[in-house]
Amino acid sequence: MTGIAFDTVCLVGIGLINSSLARALRCHNLARRLIALDASETARATALRLGVVDEAYEDAESAVAGADLVVIGTPMGAFPAVGAAIGPYLKQGAIVTDVGSVKTAAIRDLGPFIPEGVAFVPGHPIAGTEFSGPENGFAGLFAGRWHILTPPPGTDDDAVQRMVALWQAVGAQVEVMEPRHHDQVLAITSHLPHLIAYTIVGTAADLEEHLASEVIKFSASGFRDFTRIAASDPVMWRDIFLNNREAVLDVIQRFTEDLTALQRAIRWGEGDVLEQRFAKTRAIRRAVIDAKQA
Amino acid sequence: MTGIAFDTVCLVGIGLINSSLARALRCHNLARRLIALDASETARATALRLGVVDEAYEDAESAVAGADLVVIGTPMGAFPAVGAAIGPYLKQGAIVTDVGSVKTAAIRDLGPFIPEGVAFVPGHPIAGTEFSGPENGFAGLFAGRWHILTPPPGTDDDAVQRMVALWQAVGAQVEVMEPRHHDQVLAITSHLPHLIAYTIVGTAADLEEHLASEVIKFSASGFRDFTRIAASDPVMWRDIFLNNREAVLDVIQRFTEDLTALQRAIRWGEGDVLEQRFAKTRAIRRAVIDAKQA
Repeated sequence: MTGIAFDTVCLVGIGLINSSLARALRCHNLARRLIALDASETARATALRLGVVDEAYEDAESAVAGADLVVIGTPMGAFPAVGAAIGPYLKQGAIVTDVGSVKTAAIRDLGPFIPEGVAFVPGHPIAGTEFSGPENGFAGLFAGRWHILTPPPGTDDDAVQRMVALWQAVGAQVEVMEPRHHDQVLAITSHLPHLIAYTIVGTAADLEEHLASEVIKFSASGFRDFTRIAASDPVMWRDIFLNNREAVLDVIQRFTEDLTALQRAIRWGEGDVLEQRFAKTRAIRRAVIDAKQA
Repeated sequence: MTGIAFDTVCLVGIGLINSSLARALRCHNLARRLIALDASETARATALRLGVVDEAYEDAESAVAGADLVVIGTPMGAFPAVGAAIGPYLKQGAIVTDVGSVKTAAIRDLGPFIPEGVAFVPGHPIAGTEFSGPENGFAGLFAGRWHILTPPPGTDDDAVQRMVALWQAVGAQVEVMEPRHHDQVLAITSHLPHLIAYTIVGTAADLEEHLASEVIKFSASGFRDFTRIAASDPVMWRDIFLNNREAVLDVIQRFTEDLTALQRAIRWGEGDVLEQRFAKTRAIRRAVIDAKQA
């Protein structure tokens, strides 16, 4: 893709992901005019001050009425309210997408508000950092990362292809997937790891004070990797767990069974069980490295 | 410390840690002669070929009889056999230390074999990588990292001070701690995180094949950080869990209770419980960064 892909792009919720997308669109000259819609005055002021967008609004009509592409990047809990707010003002021929982490819920919560003549192409960039807010975005966030699109049946194919081209233009590799399947895959690759990291860091936080300070001091022995994951945005993650409940509960169940088996092996001194299990996971690491995702 | 600290140093088990220590001793001119004792012919040949040590032996007498410092760096399961093998040949006035991850077990398994006139100063470097073997060691492994010494009551104080000076000379910060307390702290900062990582990567490995391949493809969303931890040496970790059983079972129990509480909050849609818990862990991340351990 070369040249302007969309004349006017509206970014709803100008946080880490949408502010990175705005920078990438600017950097690759993919949009003429960038608009933020955000309820937070601080976020709007920061995005304007840093030149991330050209205009920023609190009211939906001013922000979306002229937009050719609308990208919804708020926490998922806000999706029904965002849908209700922007739906009446969406321009005929516009494309709406989102960057939410649970695709069945995005379709359930936004779909009903998308009028005839507007295409809805849900998406999810597999990219992020433990930082949030428009000041932490950067244009290279999507480079070499996956972007998953999950168009519901009947989505306009031309709109899907335009979104594929746009995400490729900012450096991502694009995959099209069934929404439900996406949610199952992400439950294990992303949602369970985050839940576990939040849990283990929380367990440490609850220790007696002198022990907790030593845990921080000696965190290089494994713990610190979990603290980075557990520093992710609390509201965003609350909404992910509430919206991917069944898939997450299913993988927690599998995980707990596996942990209980290892716990039992430790209690009974079954060294061969532990060693076999630990040896198996090295192959997965090699596969991750081979897939250039390490 | 400047100049030779020990004339002859014997490294028992020339893996990642001991080969890194050998390189660091050489690099800082802290030893005149470096000897490896290792049951593996491959490890001995590699250590000699790379110039990590001057001599390498399979038999204990040749390796330790002339050593002023003996550093035991085998997996912990081998400690009783190592103690029995080297005990009779240790030189009067020598110091024995180890780099095992569970200090009560190191004292239990090595202590009885240390003769009168030889000092035993157990230690644990909070440093490592997911790679093992002498080819993966490097002199800078301990720079800026903690080294914990856990001398049992009655240990010769001069020997303790010489070990403090040696580890500081290779770049470590040294802390002296009660063995049992060390094992409790490491159970949460290191042993539980590794067990959890092994479990979650194992859970993914057991998925249906097409799902497992997608987990690898999209691993950047959180999972890949766990695969790195879960690629650590299986035998070393088997022995750690078998030797720190009580402390590890205690923290697994706390962790499981906390995970169950979050699981219940997800099932019942208790968003406030999730958000509060997730917000709390950000403070721990900040403390880790402030402690310069990130």
